[in-house]
Amino acid sequence: MTNYRIDCLQYANWSEKIFCQMRKGDLDAVHVTIAYHETFRETVLNIEQWNRWFEQFPHLIFHGSTGADVKLARQSGRTAIFFGFQNPSPIEDDIGLVQVLHQLGARFMQLTYNNQSLLATGCYEDYDAGLTRMGRKVVDEMNRVGMVVDMSHSGEKSTLDAIEHSKRPIAITHANPHSWHPALRNKSKTVMKELAQTGGMLGFSIYPHHLKDGSNCTLESFCQMVAEAVEVMGIDSIGIGTDLCQDQPDSVVEWMRIGRWTKNIDYGEGSALDAGFPPMPNWYQDSRDFSNIDNGLVLLGMSKEERSKIMGNNWLRFYDDSFGAIK
Amino acid sequence: MTNYRIDCLQYANWSEKIFCQMRKGDLDAVHVTIAYHETFRETVLNIEQWNRWFEQFPHLIFHGSTGADVKLARQSGRTAIFFGFQNPSPIEDDIGLVQVLHQLGARFMQLTYNNQSLLATGCYEDYDAGLTRMGRKVVDEMNRVGMVVDMSHSGEKSTLDAIEHSKRPIAITHANPHSWHPALRNKSKTVMKELAQTGGMLGFSIYPHHLKDGSNCTLESFCQMVAEAVEVMGIDSIGIGTDLCQDQPDSVVEWMRIGRWTKNIDYGEGSALDAGFPPMPNWYQDSRDFSNIDNGLVLLGMSKEERSKIMGNNWLRFYDDSFGAIK
Repeated sequence: MTNYRIDCLQYANWSEKIFCQMRKGDLDAVHVTIAYHETFRETVLNIEQWNRWFEQFPHLIFHGSTGADVKLARQSGRTAIFFGFQNPSPIEDDIGLVQVLHQLGARFMQLTYNNQSLLATGCYEDYDAGLTRMGRKVVDEMNRVGMVVDMSHSGEKSTLDAIEHSKRPIAITHANPHSWHPALRNKSKTVMKELAQTGGMLGFSIYPHHLKDGSNCTLESFCQMVAEAVEVMGIDSIGIGTDLCQDQPDSVVEWMRIGRWTKNIDYGEGSALDAGFPPMPNWYQDSRDFSNIDNGLVLLGMSKEERSKIMGNNWLRFYDDSFGAIK
Repeated sequence: MTNYRIDCLQYANWSEKIFCQMRKGDLDAVHVTIAYHETFRETVLNIEQWNRWFEQFPHLIFHGSTGADVKLARQSGRTAIFFGFQNPSPIEDDIGLVQVLHQLGARFMQLTYNNQSLLATGCYEDYDAGLTRMGRKVVDEMNRVGMVVDMSHSGEKSTLDAIEHSKRPIAITHANPHSWHPALRNKSKTVMKELAQTGGMLGFSIYPHHLKDGSNCTLESFCQMVAEAVEVMGIDSIGIGTDLCQDQPDSVVEWMRIGRWTKNIDYGEGSALDAGFPPMPNWYQDSRDFSNIDNGLVLLGMSKEERSKIMGNNWLRFYDDSFGAIK
């Protein structure tokens, strides 16, 4: 059995250095966020930037679109890059853009980023009304073409609605159990159970605001949280989505939080005293530290097969099942 | 040997009726124009319309992107649809959109439509300065990704420049010899020879303004013109690009001619007294008449092999060689 390694969420200030670190961390695939608040045209500009990186660094990375590309990445010693959006802004008000963006390689789309969108309610709104009329139609279209519904930043009811309405398993690419660290972004046991029962996936995040004790969270505590999630969800529905925001200036976290929706500052998960990107835990500075997670799980007594599933094989199975058109 | 049938240019008001007629005409592939003056976003809206047609009529048509798709079309009894632009407006001022639009299926792009563009000079301008600085870079990029340079509506110098600068053979998808009918859009012997010597292709047009005697042009005259072109270009560099503009209202030919570049009327190849779409010759009303061309070539004594090349096999060889990335 091959042990694949997949990081199912990064939003780094990518560079040749970071691509080399992906290789040093033996990452076969990375799901990269290419839009937060971007319009369609702005998203296409970001795709153009990625096309240039693929042309410049073909020995390090290539554009992945299927599960088979993860295997190709392993065989050829490169990292397959999969595109995703943390907001549905790239499709604007136009359901036809779902297929167009799938043709351009998008494989994940969050229905919301913290706020209400045209499709669903974000986790920071006061009231969550669930999937909207357009939201249901867009989920159907995402199901048809093979784009994964990602509810990482959505409210509880919207998330449960999406799980129920979607004909294909959905994902929460980067979040942790609310019981371990009660951040608004972390997920309830109800969501975790429904997700697992429908074949969905949860990727554990290492973004400090999602961690118990924040930047000081220990590897032991993180791995204990993973083990407890196995009790709730089973071993087949979990993976890693580090939410690594490496080398980003703090102006970027401000853009992530306020986009163009407010003229005022909003600190999101941070605060006025802690407004910037929080420092990552010392055991996860960049992709070269990916194996530290595996090492931590060894110390908990997890078997090689269990660790392989968490470190990438579950995501690979999910990629294989999720990215093609419905037959 | 299979005899493929390819119409390398149509701009119809497409409908289920027209797709059925493509099938009745045994067309394995049609190159359809999806943009005249459209911006990038407007072109994407046209792609969305095609995606809907592909979803609605999968038994008649599908989206073609390689020469292999022409063979698949024959095997499955459908018509492969290839996208092209008659103007570079879809890439706006952004060379990165060449690859993005290739990813969305674009396989042909004219560098000009009658007027000066950012890339080259159209056939209606007073002075043709040839390929521009951006034009040379865009031709390089089209060569790299596998998008064919089409000079059907370009001036003589721009066309010769493009043939010389392009590292891959180019096409004139829809035009006829100037010596047969001296329209501004038709091509000189110099262009025809240079095109053939570099492996390029000329598609013969049945649009009446490109025909001797216009709508009254006889099939015999058309086929005689083809035979004379063989004398100039050889048998391997020619095919058909009917320029069929079926079921279009006259408002569309006005849009084709003036887009947004003038507030005044411009009659293009027409005139105030003949402003609308001219009636097609009685021997070519729609795709069901495609075999009439073959029948006309039989009467001239052409061999089966020669006719097969003209009716589609030359285009298929060109598709096979042109639509992939440079290795």
